[in-house]
Order: sequence, then C-alpha cells, then structure tokens
Amino acid sequence: MFRPVHGGNLAWAAQLARCRPDELLDFSASISPLGPPSSVSEAIQAAFSSVVDYPDPNYGLLREAIAHHHHIPTDHILPGNGAAELLTWAARDLAERSTPTFLLAPGFSDYDRALDAFSVSRLGIDLLDAEGWNIEHWDKKLSDMTDTVKLSSCGLLLNNPHNPTGALFSAEKVRSLLSKFAFVVVDEAFMDFLPPEREQSVIDAVSEFPNLVVLRSLTKFYSMPGIRLGYAVAQPETLQRWQSWRDAWPVNTFAAAAGVAALQDTAFAQQTWQWLETENAYLFEGLSACEQLSPLPSSANFFLVDCAVSATDLQVQLLKKHRIYIRDCMSFQQLGDRFFRVAVKAREDNQRLLAALADVLPTLETVPNTVSCGS
Amino acid sequence: MFRPVHGGNLAWAAQLARCRPDELLDFSASISPLGPPSSVSEAIQAAFSSVVDYPDPNYGLLREAIAHHHHIPTDHILPGNGAAELLTWAARDLAERSTPTFLLAPGFSDYDRALDAFSVSRLGIDLLDAEGWNIEHWDKKLSDMTDTVKLSSCGLLLNNPHNPTGALFSAEKVRSLLSKFAFVVVDEAFMDFLPPEREQSVIDAVSEFPNLVVLRSLTKFYSMPGIRLGYAVAQPETLQRWQSWRDAWPVNTFAAAAGVAALQDTAFAQQTWQWLETENAYLFEGLSACEQLSPLPSSANFFLVDCAVSATDLQVQLLKKHRIYIRDCMSFQQLGDRFFRVAVKAREDNQRLLAALADVLPTLETVPNTVSCGS
Repeated sequence: MFRPVHGGNLAWAAQLARCRPDELLDFSASISPLGPPSSVSEAIQAAFSSVVDYPDPNYGLLREAIAHHHHIPTDHILPGNGAAELLTWAARDLAERSTPTFLLAPGFSDYDRALDAFSVSRLGIDLLDAEGWNIEHWDKKLSDMTDTVKLSSCGLLLNNPHNPTGALFSAEKVRSLLSKFAFVVVDEAFMDFLPPEREQSVIDAVSEFPNLVVLRSLTKFYSMPGIRLGYAVAQPETLQRWQSWRDAWPVNTFAAAAGVAALQDTAFAQQTWQWLETENAYLFEGLSACEQLSPLPSSANFFLVDCAVSATDLQVQLLKKHRIYIRDCMSFQQLGDRFFRVAVKAREDNQRLLAALADVLPTLETVPNTVSCGS
Repeated sequence: MFRPVHGGNLAWAAQLARCRPDELLDFSASISPLGPPSSVSEAIQAAFSSVVDYPDPNYGLLREAIAHHHHIPTDHILPGNGAAELLTWAARDLAERSTPTFLLAPGFSDYDRALDAFSVSRLGIDLLDAEGWNIEHWDKKLSDMTDTVKLSSCGLLLNNPHNPTGALFSAEKVRSLLSKFAFVVVDEAFMDFLPPEREQSVIDAVSEFPNLVVLRSLTKFYSMPGIRLGYAVAQPETLQRWQSWRDAWPVNTFAAAAGVAALQDTAFAQQTWQWLETENAYLFEGLSACEQLSPLPSSANFFLVDCAVSATDLQVQLLKKHRIYIRDCMSFQQLGDRFFRVAVKAREDNQRLLAALADVLPTLETVPNTVSCGS
C-alpha cells in the first residue's frame, strides 16, 4: 500500500498500526474532538422523513441561518458540498477573470487540484525560504513583485487562518489587498475556531468588494467532515454565476439540516472556544518542551511542527508503537520530511501524544537541517 | 410568486393550494411511492457515528455494491452527488471532445443547464413535429442529418427511458449509434424501474466503447432524492478525468451508506417492479378514458399526457380544488401548455388523481390543438 498523498487516509495508517481504523488516535485531520453537537444528531434524525423530497433548491432555511450568524443578506450566501466543491468554482472564476493567481506556499493541497482543473497559472508567495519563515511580512514580498506583474489583472487565493502553519493574518492586512487584485478568494475554513473578539474574517468586506469571495466550512468546527457542508459569501452576481455552472442540489437534506442546527447551537461554540484556548496552549507548551521539536505558534486547532528527525519515520513509529496517526507534510512540497502537523484534541489525547513522542523521539536519528527555521 | 421553471417546487404549489407542502398529493416528481426502503433508514442511522471522519475518497464499499449489482469492474464506476452532478462533468467532456452535441427534443431541462455551463453547441432531434410524434424512428432522422454534419466529431446525449415521454429505446438501437459519435452520454436515470428481463441498459457496452458514459440515479427508484446519489459507468480514463475536475468527496457519508443498503435490498426491487407493472397499466387506462386526455405509452414511472385543455389551468384547478400537484411542461419548449406529466403512485393516490381529473376537466375550456398528436 503506497503512502497516501493527501492526509487523513485512515485505512493506510490502520494497516501499519495493525488495528482497525477506529482504534487509531487520529491527529492527522484537523477536526474538533468535541462534536458533532447533539443538536446536529437530532436534526439529522428529524430530516430522515424529508429524503423523499428534493432539497429546497434555494436552501432557504440554511441560508437564513448563515445570514443570521454573520449579519449579512441571504443573497450573499451560496451553500456548497463542502468548501472543496466551492473551491472548484472559485478556480473556474479565477481562470476566467484573473491570471496568474497568487497563493501562499506552502498551502492546502486541494488548491492545486482545483486550480489544475481549470488550468489556472499561479505564482507562489514563499512563507519559508533560505532565511527561514517569513509569515508576518509576505504582503511586503508581494509588493516587491509588482515590478514584474500587474496585480490588477491577477487573482489572489488566501487561507486565513493559514493551513498548515496556523498563522492568523489581520483582517486589516487582507482588506488592504482587496482593491489591488482582479479577484480575491479568502478560504476561512478555520476562522470559526476563533472567538468573536479575536476573529479576523473579511466577510463584512463583501458588500464593498464585488471581486471578493470568502469560503467557509461547517465541518471542521462541528466535527462533521462526513457531512460535506460549506458556503461561499460574495455578491449575488458572483454566486449566480457559480450556481449556473453546477447542478441545483449540491447539498443533501441531511447536510442542510445539520448546518441549520449547528449554527443555532451557540452553547457548543462557546464550549469549543474555551476548550481550544486551553488545549492549544497546553499542546504548544508540551511540543516545545521536546528537544527535537519546534511547533509554530497557531491560532487554529492544529500545529505545524518543525522536527529534527525524519517526520515520516516518526509517523511510522507512532503508528506502530502507539497507534497514533500524525500528518506528514510530504504533500506540501516546500516542507517535505522535516515537518509534521497535528490537530489539537482533548486533554487526555494530547497527553497521550506527548507521552508517545517522548517515547519515540529518542529512538530516531537526528537528520541535518536543510532550512533554518524560526518564525 | 412566479410559476417555477423547473418542476417539483412544492412551496409554490402549496401556496396556491393553501396548505402545507406535505399536505399536497405530489404527482409532479417522478419518485417511487414505495420507498425509501427500511434498509436505507437503518443504514443512515448506523452511519451517524461516521460523520466525524471524511468519507472514503475511493467510495470503496459503494463502488463494490454497484459493481456487484451490474457485474462490472469497480474501476468502471464513479459515484456522484446525484446524476445531476455527473451531468456537469459529462457536459465539460462534451465541450472538450465533441461538437456539436445531438440531443432529443423535448428533453430533461437540466441537460440545457449543464451544456450551457460549458457552452456546448447542440442540435436537437425533434420527437414531436408538425406531423405528430416520431418516437420510434428518430434514429433515421439522425441518419438523414449526416449529409450536413460529420457525426464522428459530434457528441450524443440520450435519455433512456426518455423523459418526459417515458419511451424506452432498445439497447440494440442505442448500441448501433455508439461507433458513430465521438462521445456518447446515455442517461439511464429511470432504467432501474424496468425488471431485468425488460431493461435496455447499455452498461455492458462500456467495456467495448471508450467513448461511452452511462449515468444512473439511485434516488428515483429508492425514493430518496433528498439524499443526492448517482453514478457514472465508463472506462477508467474518462472517470479519472472527471475525478480530476472535482473535489475528492462529492458524496457524503449518509448518501454512500444509503446507496450500499439500497442496492443490496433485492426484495424492495422486486416489490417495485410488481407495483409499477400493475399501476402503470391502471393509470394509463384511467387517463386514456378521459375524453380530453391522451397519455403516451410509458415504460417508466410517469406519463406524458397530451390534453385538450390548458395544462397550466388544469394544474391550478387541481391544486386549488384537490391539493393535487401535476407537472406542467412549460419548461419543455417543444411542449408548452398542451401537455402535463404525472408520476405513477400507489393505487389509492392514482384513484384520487383520476377522480379529481373527472371533476375538474369538464369545467375547463377546450383549446385549439396546434400540433397533431398520436405516437
């Protein structure tokens, strides 16, 4: 069985760990350990009687719930079969309206899939180079590139908080770029992990910028990636164009019902923010305490960790000895075998990970560092 | 509220009928009245514990169930978020590989949506013209057109059984066309309503013809359109191309589980074939007995009915007086206000429809016939 290119392949990991996939402790997928909320479970039960009907092609109840959540008009919202489906149409728009498209490197591998599907040419903005991480000032690097490229005919595909680093860019910084590009897609798949007083969404800029689309996910925060549910926020003209490219019912009855229930469950959101504040700090401290590991500070529910050993060796040993699955970073071409990513989980699981790392790390050989690191 | 362009808009109909949508007797959507099977309900309950994981991107269990059902290899199968999602990618392939694309007229309105999305030019093969219906010999009409168009660079998008007429074309006839076109898409969304001894699928021609894709639906026969589930059958090269255009998880956990359970439920299939044989005959006879109505013989679970009164007037009266919703044919530009479509339902409901027609038809004015009809 080949090492899977994308993360989250539990079947491959379980075979190495000689156990069933559900016996793995999975740190590879950045999904909250708290959900799905019981309100979602109840909504799904109740939705069963509606599967005999087509979903409402307007997704009226779902769009109202999203509109209420963000205080925006319903016609600024397009639900999708996960943010990944909407990314497909974002890529088509980028292909038709703006070229090349700038994106941060490293970046989420599905961006390449979507951009390749519509042959979008692209330019990477390196966050990691020979001098180390440059997470704070990539926008200055972008300004330096304007000598060679006219940004007003280009696209920009951003990820905030950024995956895999967990870096959060200020809304002010993102806003300052909106008027410079022909078309801007901001993937805020992890923004809901930040409480209202700290979040940096640019959803409120949509009414001002017809060239902006914000993508959101409802499956990471509410622990329901199997349900496939996300939405785009943009001005109606953009959303109508996307709608004309796809079929009328991309979100099924269960996903639509789950989304409405999840967004109304404010108690679950509060609980998640409290958990993450505590466990993000706990896991960061624990990882930092390992001599061979340097986690990057993260505003999201995962950490990118620079390690002084081979990350794929570490991954295999954690599977074989502890049935713990961490995400290698081989699919991020700028990172390779010196990095891994772990989700933040419940205290007991985070403790198990730290104990397993303390057990396995001393058995692995330190490999030479080819890039200098430090954020 | 405007009359909806696509059928199945229960909210619009319920407002006219002054009742809740679930109080309507809905003959507009061609969905079996027998399902969803209890096996599907159980599978969905069981799937809830898996929503915390991403769906298997290979959809292994689902593809195995489909492969077993048709006796074909698993790599000839691509599941989709309803046949409608797969139609989007069929249209993209038609746009890139074959132009123009031939299709039967009238035809399913979603074909136009998908073909428009990729600017596919098209040529209609009229089933209905000044001389009446020409359902049996459209392939001869196609042969006559070869004087002006080179078929080997063209696409063909067929629907078998054909919607809205319910006509079934022989597999032999469809097969005879496969070698003539660059790319052929056969939408067999209603083929499962025919028992094995009468079905005319060309799925078994896929291994021989790399230019053939067959689309199937799992939501009409199993009464679960809210679940969104269909699949394409084609050679791996075509399916890999489609897969590269879309995201990794278009089918959610519930839909995948429902599909496996449904395909294994052979008792439900038997029961459906028995019901349809009886009720198709009963409803055809009942409709034919109405002086103003001429239903077309149908092999599927619906009838297209030529009527001597305004079909939209009839639709409104049936809603207002009987809370019965029939499908007008205004979205089929070749048909207009002289036709409606009704699903075949359970005996009691079919009786209610016939009684309501007997009540309402005499109150409506006969309108002049602009096309002569008779299949």
